[in-house]
Amino acid sequence: MKIIVDAMGGDNAPVSNVRGALSAVRELGVEVVLVGRGEEILKVLKEDGVDDLPPGVEIAHASEVVEMCDNPATAFKEKKDSSLTVGLNLLKNGAADAFVSAGSTGAILSAATLLVKRIRGIRRAALAPVVPTGAGGAVLIDCGATAECTPEYLLQFAFMGSYYAERVLGRPEPKVGLLNIGVEESKGMDLQREAYALLKQAGEAGRIHFVGNVEAREAVYGAADVIVTDGYSGNIFLKTMEGTGGFLARQLKAMFRKSLLTKLAALMVSGGLKQFKKLMDAGEVGGTALVGISKPVIKAHGSSDDFAIKNAIRQAAAFASAGIIEDITENIGHMRLPVGGMEKI
Amino acid sequence: MKIIVDAMGGDNAPVSNVRGALSAVRELGVEVVLVGRGEEILKVLKEDGVDDLPPGVEIAHASEVVEMCDNPATAFKEKKDSSLTVGLNLLKNGAADAFVSAGSTGAILSAATLLVKRIRGIRRAALAPVVPTGAGGAVLIDCGATAECTPEYLLQFAFMGSYYAERVLGRPEPKVGLLNIGVEESKGMDLQREAYALLKQAGEAGRIHFVGNVEAREAVYGAADVIVTDGYSGNIFLKTMEGTGGFLARQLKAMFRKSLLTKLAALMVSGGLKQFKKLMDAGEVGGTALVGISKPVIKAHGSSDDFAIKNAIRQAAAFASAGIIEDITENIGHMRLPVGGMEKI
Repeated sequence: MKIIVDAMGGDNAPVSNVRGALSAVRELGVEVVLVGRGEEILKVLKEDGVDDLPPGVEIAHASEVVEMCDNPATAFKEKKDSSLTVGLNLLKNGAADAFVSAGSTGAILSAATLLVKRIRGIRRAALAPVVPTGAGGAVLIDCGATAECTPEYLLQFAFMGSYYAERVLGRPEPKVGLLNIGVEESKGMDLQREAYALLKQAGEAGRIHFVGNVEAREAVYGAADVIVTDGYSGNIFLKTMEGTGGFLARQLKAMFRKSLLTKLAALMVSGGLKQFKKLMDAGEVGGTALVGISKPVIKAHGSSDDFAIKNAIRQAAAFASAGIIEDITENIGHMRLPVGGMEKI
Repeated sequence: MKIIVDAMGGDNAPVSNVRGALSAVRELGVEVVLVGRGEEILKVLKEDGVDDLPPGVEIAHASEVVEMCDNPATAFKEKKDSSLTVGLNLLKNGAADAFVSAGSTGAILSAATLLVKRIRGIRRAALAPVVPTGAGGAVLIDCGATAECTPEYLLQFAFMGSYYAERVLGRPEPKVGLLNIGVEESKGMDLQREAYALLKQAGEAGRIHFVGNVEAREAVYGAADVIVTDGYSGNIFLKTMEGTGGFLARQLKAMFRKSLLTKLAALMVSGGLKQFKKLMDAGEVGGTALVGISKPVIKAHGSSDDFAIKNAIRQAAAFASAGIIEDITENIGHMRLPVGGMEKI
């Protein structure tokens, strides 16, 4: 298993990217290709006392870097020798099994769609993070790749999310729920009502395990293994979750810092607090899968440290070995509406 | 100040409704009209050792009750002698200053809109709860009254939310933010982009203090005093917040219950834990204002206990004395688009 790592993307690049990649090689038994400015990558290695490239580590030189200020839609074309473009071309040409970047989400999405291409028949790629829930986590699909969706996109997200939950999270018969503002079939806008009909049909045909509409609160509590939604609502869901978690973590911190007594109390529950922190930590999961592209791409969090990069590489390896892209390809016939749309079904 | 209280709506009716109303009379110096089945109301009073109606408490008999299984759109018409219909007619006829109910949100919304009517020129009433944020709370408008909105609705929500934040939360020049999936003007769907233009214009005219798009995470952290959004997204925001808060509270509880040592730690931070609980407790605020109706209506949480009902009555009194409806009426000219919509502005 060989993973291409964008050495230049993210707030802590190239240091964390290089260190995380080396940890992955040592601990996970994968090979990595570090893509980026060779001299900068070597400098990080040298500073860490690594004089020769360890076995399993390659460097692919790329002189440019896609920055946050570049136009995400065109950056990969304007900067043909960027780590993003070079890395994705390596992936496309079969030089490795998966690609990881902590760079700009928009740029990765555009570049992956236009260079590596979507799976044939898939209308839109989706960002599918695993969010913490009362049932040990759920795949949220989409969380922002496509703000405005059609019912057919949501149908495809449901299938893709279901394969991901089954193969990567190890959930047999993953429960697929449609994010909505009530459980009744009539709830939501036209998008949700039409998607409901499609998902119900797919459920009745035994192709996915559709559990109906799920409200946001129940989704957090763990009512579904796959939370299907358009990118706009999915983004609101994800960011509200992050915000509320962060807000409460701050309140908790303030509570424990109040006095000597409360600091002592913090020590007494330190094991629990660590677990609590782990639960809310995006770095634990590593990154967000970009599902629907013909090869595995993982977007790591922009603020990824060494640990988060290593975990994103772990996730990329799991994605690549899971056979999800093959699943999608084989079942694409069930995920498409006849031309003419809803009326024909 | 006289508040009409639906004695029959909610999970704990009539007991909590009657008790909460009596506490409000004693502690807040308001008068109440308890609407519902007279004999059931009197029974609660008797069980609490109250043989004569205390000063400031009236009963308005209504023989029927709107149930959760009734059609929300038509319940008030089908059950003309329900506590909801009788109570809202009293409000309409000026028998009191505001109305509080813990009954079905949909039924209250339909009944208030059709019986009491919207403020002239307001296109849709909105549910505007105060959500906990890093800045001491924000008005979220709308959170589910209207799933599908137009840019004009959002413009009206912005004005109404701003008046509410200023007059009820006491925020001078409330910061009005548009909930979106990025801060740039181009973010979101057509709805958000067109609403952005309208809010920007209202801000430049000095009518509201528009701070631009706010992402859900920053909204929770306290970037705005008023979070403007359509009912679908607002509901996702609110329920995700509630779900995440509830989920983390459970984790915290489990952490403190693990052993004798952790239980001792819980005692040592008990003051902080109480504050923490208070922060997440919907009952503290009382209820959700239904803004845009020509008289003040408060929807209390369905699971309201005595304390929550009392606080909903407090909120109704604050709403009624704040002059918000007058503000809206006077400024309605700035909240309407010329016929023909966006093209004309």
